[in-house]
Amino acid sequence: MEKPYVIGIDMGGTNTVFGIVDVRGNVISKSAIKTAVHDDVNLYVNDIYHELMKLIDADGGIDQIRGIGVGAPNGNYYSGTIEYAPNLPWKGVIPFAKLLSDKFGVPVALTNDANAAAIGEMTYGIARGMKDFIMITLGTGVGSGIVIDGKLVYGHDGFAGELGHTTAIRNGRLCGCGKNGCLEAYSSATGVARTAREILETTNQESILRNIPLSDITSKDVYDAAKEGDQVAIDIFNFTGKILGEAFADFVAFSSPEAIILFGGLSKAGEFILNPIVENMEKNLLKMWKGKIKILFSELKESDAAVLGASALAWEL
Amino acid sequence: MEKPYVIGIDMGGTNTVFGIVDVRGNVISKSAIKTAVHDDVNLYVNDIYHELMKLIDADGGIDQIRGIGVGAPNGNYYSGTIEYAPNLPWKGVIPFAKLLSDKFGVPVALTNDANAAAIGEMTYGIARGMKDFIMITLGTGVGSGIVIDGKLVYGHDGFAGELGHTTAIRNGRLCGCGKNGCLEAYSSATGVARTAREILETTNQESILRNIPLSDITSKDVYDAAKEGDQVAIDIFNFTGKILGEAFADFVAFSSPEAIILFGGLSKAGEFILNPIVENMEKNLLKMWKGKIKILFSELKESDAAVLGASALAWEL
Repeated sequence: MEKPYVIGIDMGGTNTVFGIVDVRGNVISKSAIKTAVHDDVNLYVNDIYHELMKLIDADGGIDQIRGIGVGAPNGNYYSGTIEYAPNLPWKGVIPFAKLLSDKFGVPVALTNDANAAAIGEMTYGIARGMKDFIMITLGTGVGSGIVIDGKLVYGHDGFAGELGHTTAIRNGRLCGCGKNGCLEAYSSATGVARTAREILETTNQESILRNIPLSDITSKDVYDAAKEGDQVAIDIFNFTGKILGEAFADFVAFSSPEAIILFGGLSKAGEFILNPIVENMEKNLLKMWKGKIKILFSELKESDAAVLGASALAWEL
Repeated sequence: MEKPYVIGIDMGGTNTVFGIVDVRGNVISKSAIKTAVHDDVNLYVNDIYHELMKLIDADGGIDQIRGIGVGAPNGNYYSGTIEYAPNLPWKGVIPFAKLLSDKFGVPVALTNDANAAAIGEMTYGIARGMKDFIMITLGTGVGSGIVIDGKLVYGHDGFAGELGHTTAIRNGRLCGCGKNGCLEAYSSATGVARTAREILETTNQESILRNIPLSDITSKDVYDAAKEGDQVAIDIFNFTGKILGEAFADFVAFSSPEAIILFGGLSKAGEFILNPIVENMEKNLLKMWKGKIKILFSELKESDAAVLGASALAWEL
């Protein structure tokens, strides 16, 4: 009998969420542990095993599990390793897929979180049936998963698709990666907060954001202010959307996707971010692409999306 | 018996060159006609037929021909059409592959010239065995052919790989495509000539380039001057290479190629252009790619390369 379930593991810097998923993309059970409490990755794997086996046993045992898919920061699909992830406690190259498959006795596939999101979108989400699209995750950082001709792009070394670290503004803001002017430094949630601080510090414009201590402003505060009609907040999204739209025009020139799909916290800003993205992308597209490239929001339930995306990897095992 | 030959047709704005190619990549016979003498594309097809059948008959007749590959400006692989090519006399959408296959009675595949060069490089050149690379053609314009996982990237509409029209300098030079600041406006042969004029007009630096009327300076003149140790000429290549290297770092973030391969007139500038490309690409790469991405020059004989590239398409028919 065909094994009916896969497991998706979404490893974040703080929490690791995992769930059992059926072939229709239903998360039938879900749990989580803290990621960063152990310096020894083996103890972390033990924690996952302990918690996950409770779910597995409740759903019919390990014989029902076809495989495990993992979305992890700096995850390498080819080698199954996590390599030099700055936000994780384990340094160097961690053979994480092997550690898990040895522990559970089922096959394990691993990639980075944005790639997992792209595969999830293609398997269960708005990209079903699309062969060429780009997934952009707008969270604490900016990630991307690129699908060309129905397949995820891994590149020669497994690390392709770092569009958050293409240059948006030459010699611009310092990015966490050490380079200047990266897209991520402007259009992540933290980039939006940074833009807010810059505008508030360099202008005298009235804004309800001035009621919040500068260093505490988040992208959610900016969104809330924009909904109230706050012009500074709207300007912040216009600036962020302009930078994203200009970058997207270059991405289109590369792979000519049918759609660019937005995922993650910042995509909740809806039209405040969508309108300037579309306007500035269109302005910068070659004539043959004008009016033809869709900008869409992910339809996956945010709380389940990362687990779903990771789990989708396991169907290919 | 397996048919032993393919035909490659390289359609340029001025000349159309074609040749018969064997499985080892030898151009066993070659000829050419003028491209732009007829407003009616059917008369142009007749001209090709007339000249090409002489070669075909001399090499054993049409039964020896497996197929025809065409590299053409704005050529679309999916539809076999040439669409709105600004440098050709036929306007709108031309079903060129169908016109040729009806005329010759053999299958025809068509793509744009830079894609044809990439396929040629993969089939007969320095990219043999590579699964992930980017071909950059530095000629009158800047073209690109992107290979990912062993396959050329066509995108959802057949037009992917327009890297010459990614933005190098926001609000920069006006490009022939109507946008501002495109890579092509700086790093094509005409872009190099434009840089020469800008530097000579805005500085008083001594240069042997001042012996040439400003509007007559070509990229070849700049190369000749650089070989003489002319500092202005060397600065021109440093500037051009900086722009290319910065762009290449973004291309690497997209598809993580094993190599970026340079082809076309400007690549003759050798180390004058290579050194600043490598230096500025390395500066802008994420840490994991530093020192790992090769910048190579095409090894295909320039006079045969375009025909070889187009012919390579026909082996897949």
